[in-house]
Amino acid sequence: MAELTLMDKLVSLAKRRGFIFQSSEVYGGLGSVWDYGPLGVALKRNVKDRWWHSLVQARDDIEGLDAAILMHPKVWEASGHVSGFTDPMVDCRTCKGRFRADKLADARCAQKPSKIPGEHSACDLTEPRMFNLMFKTFMGPVEETASVVYLRPETAQGIYVNYLNVLNSSRQKIPFGIAQIGKAFRNEITPGNFIFRTREFEQMEMQFFVRPGTDDEWFERWREIRMQWHIDLGLNPEKLRWHAHGDGELAHYAKAAYDIEYEFAFGWQEIEGIHNRTDFDLGRHQEYSGKKLEYFEQASGERYLPYVVETSAGADRVTLTVMTDAYREEDVEGEVRVVLGFHPSIAPIKAAVLPLTKKDGLPEIAEQLYHDIKRRVPAYYDDGGAIGRRYRRQDEIGTPWCFTVDHDTLTDRTVTVRHRDTMQQERIGLDQVLPYLTSRLEA
Amino acid sequence: MAELTLMDKLVSLAKRRGFIFQSSEVYGGLGSVWDYGPLGVALKRNVKDRWWHSLVQARDDIEGLDAAILMHPKVWEASGHVSGFTDPMVDCRTCKGRFRADKLADARCAQKPSKIPGEHSACDLTEPRMFNLMFKTFMGPVEETASVVYLRPETAQGIYVNYLNVLNSSRQKIPFGIAQIGKAFRNEITPGNFIFRTREFEQMEMQFFVRPGTDDEWFERWREIRMQWHIDLGLNPEKLRWHAHGDGELAHYAKAAYDIEYEFAFGWQEIEGIHNRTDFDLGRHQEYSGKKLEYFEQASGERYLPYVVETSAGADRVTLTVMTDAYREEDVEGEVRVVLGFHPSIAPIKAAVLPLTKKDGLPEIAEQLYHDIKRRVPAYYDDGGAIGRRYRRQDEIGTPWCFTVDHDTLTDRTVTVRHRDTMQQERIGLDQVLPYLTSRLEA
Repeated sequence: MAELTLMDKLVSLAKRRGFIFQSSEVYGGLGSVWDYGPLGVALKRNVKDRWWHSLVQARDDIEGLDAAILMHPKVWEASGHVSGFTDPMVDCRTCKGRFRADKLADARCAQKPSKIPGEHSACDLTEPRMFNLMFKTFMGPVEETASVVYLRPETAQGIYVNYLNVLNSSRQKIPFGIAQIGKAFRNEITPGNFIFRTREFEQMEMQFFVRPGTDDEWFERWREIRMQWHIDLGLNPEKLRWHAHGDGELAHYAKAAYDIEYEFAFGWQEIEGIHNRTDFDLGRHQEYSGKKLEYFEQASGERYLPYVVETSAGADRVTLTVMTDAYREEDVEGEVRVVLGFHPSIAPIKAAVLPLTKKDGLPEIAEQLYHDIKRRVPAYYDDGGAIGRRYRRQDEIGTPWCFTVDHDTLTDRTVTVRHRDTMQQERIGLDQVLPYLTSRLEA
Repeated sequence: MAELTLMDKLVSLAKRRGFIFQSSEVYGGLGSVWDYGPLGVALKRNVKDRWWHSLVQARDDIEGLDAAILMHPKVWEASGHVSGFTDPMVDCRTCKGRFRADKLADARCAQKPSKIPGEHSACDLTEPRMFNLMFKTFMGPVEETASVVYLRPETAQGIYVNYLNVLNSSRQKIPFGIAQIGKAFRNEITPGNFIFRTREFEQMEMQFFVRPGTDDEWFERWREIRMQWHIDLGLNPEKLRWHAHGDGELAHYAKAAYDIEYEFAFGWQEIEGIHNRTDFDLGRHQEYSGKKLEYFEQASGERYLPYVVETSAGADRVTLTVMTDAYREEDVEGEVRVVLGFHPSIAPIKAAVLPLTKKDGLPEIAEQLYHDIKRRVPAYYDDGGAIGRRYRRQDEIGTPWCFTVDHDTLTDRTVTVRHRDTMQQERIGLDQVLPYLTSRLEA
């Protein structure tokens, strides 16, 4: 039997322990759409909250925004998405497969999966057709051209069209930023790799508005801040690298672009992009809306269109990254120990409380401790099975600390702290558990 | 000039101070779609976090979920939405208006707004046609019937199709619940009243799975819990009431339904529904998917389809409700004082720090205090204009406490605390500000 890949193991663990389920699974699933279960929604919330806190709550120069998914269709004409957000698509007349013409090397023939469609006579391909990646729908009761609206393919445009509203209502001055977390949709021809490339996904985007001429400097500053953010999330720095976009890769709006890449089992892949989008977007919205979008700088008395430095991360991708990075298997006394070694700040459960047995008054003490902890941080109570197996269950979902109540607790009021990463144990006072936890979580 | 309505004032305040903007405003707006600005996103996040905390984090019997917006189309056949989620629509051949046939009394002729379309000869109406309220789009590169998917019109179905996955991965037992916050979409013929009825909206839904026969008791218990939640949010209890659905109003899936209504300026309106959905949804999914969705109860050895008690609230509606309920105007020395008297737990900004003047070392002390506070709770620094005007600006965005640094601070290390609701002032030590705030916010 072939060895399971890391991705197979992650998908299986994710389902078994309630991180991520396939959407509409009872109906056979919906292609590349995924639902977050109890632990997954907690993990993803923690990732998003850390991002929001670092940009919106901890800084004075960035404001939050939550623009709707549906926007005026003119937005997407101005942004260039209606005419240019396309992939070249080919069909195979023989195997009926559908492929991206520019990614044929990654594709496989639908009838003979060992073959690459573009090579030799493996497939009988049509000429490439340009296919727009925006999902379209109809607003109002009649399906007609006049009522077409799109599901946004990026959250950034919601920030651009609101930038003057934010500026006027918040009394920010340039340089300043606007941050947003929200869903976006792309009708990808070939999604895949679990939650890495999905048609419905969540972005964490920040647009930083600066005076033209200061954009290169801000671009470098934001590259540094954003890389550090991923490192602070606990990711292995050796698995992170920069990829600079060459001339051929640069998007039409970008003067410079760097990707933060992570080394997944399926290769180095982008998890965040830092882009110097210049005044392209604001200039286009000014042109298409006929409204002046210039900033008036009081100090100099000048009017100008700001340049924009964008930091664009995928919430689902970062979630997959922290799961991948945290996953490890260890051989412990002849058995495989599976650990999700999450940074405590993003672990879905911070502490588990385990009574050694279900009698002798241990459950009463353990339950009281559990309720005390749960008032402050997410906690889990487990009284089922051998203590070793209970530790393994917590390792597998990434709980950093287990607190075990045993018979000594009855006499000396201490509990065992068992550490996920080292499996080491120490004894602390029952009344020290909360301070112990909070000091480590605030560190 | 006609007096401004409360809604006009709220819309204006919401835009001016950065709570809520019209979507795509530079393009003339998109009908009944709204974007949350810096203070609005903070307010709505606080509402959603309170809901999530009270149900998922503070309880042991409810798990969180975040299902995707796009689901398998069979889900909506099973749920009854494809065939039955419709409104009767009529067109007027004269004024070209489009109306809900069952709500003509609320409609106005497009040419003669003083006329009601259905009365006498005001409009020349077509026969009613049934119009499905689900937004549809196409997944994959070809627009064909086989690729139609819908934007979910409610988040609840994502919970039903995942209920066994959650049960199996979380070791919950019935009775237990699954809670979810997420976007839903309804192609309403006549949306309106600001963010009250919008085509894109956010739901906070919880489905509680119970043993048949215990559903009436759980239904009553959840009615009580949910009403109390709104009262704890600071809403005026006299503006809240129950509306029981009579036989003619009950949805096809419901055995009993009660709405929590709030008295808006435009009348009593639903802000949350509590529904006994019986085993209707699970039964339909079992039938349409061919998969057994029964629960095995270990204690009794029985298998059954659980009954479901649903609590379904609108995050946007609750946000509008807290804004409406908090809004008041007072006559203070011949001037109108506008106050958003939010409960401190949901106020976007908890504290403002105001140096009385911009010199004599006051800004340095104030800035230090501001940064100390901001590390813990959202704070605002304002050094511009007369102190009275600065208090008014904070009143208008609902900041509960202002801390003013003045010349006495230099000598006795005390500051003035100024209270939003009473406008009363007291002096406390500079080093007492943080304990003062945290004790009041935890209360």
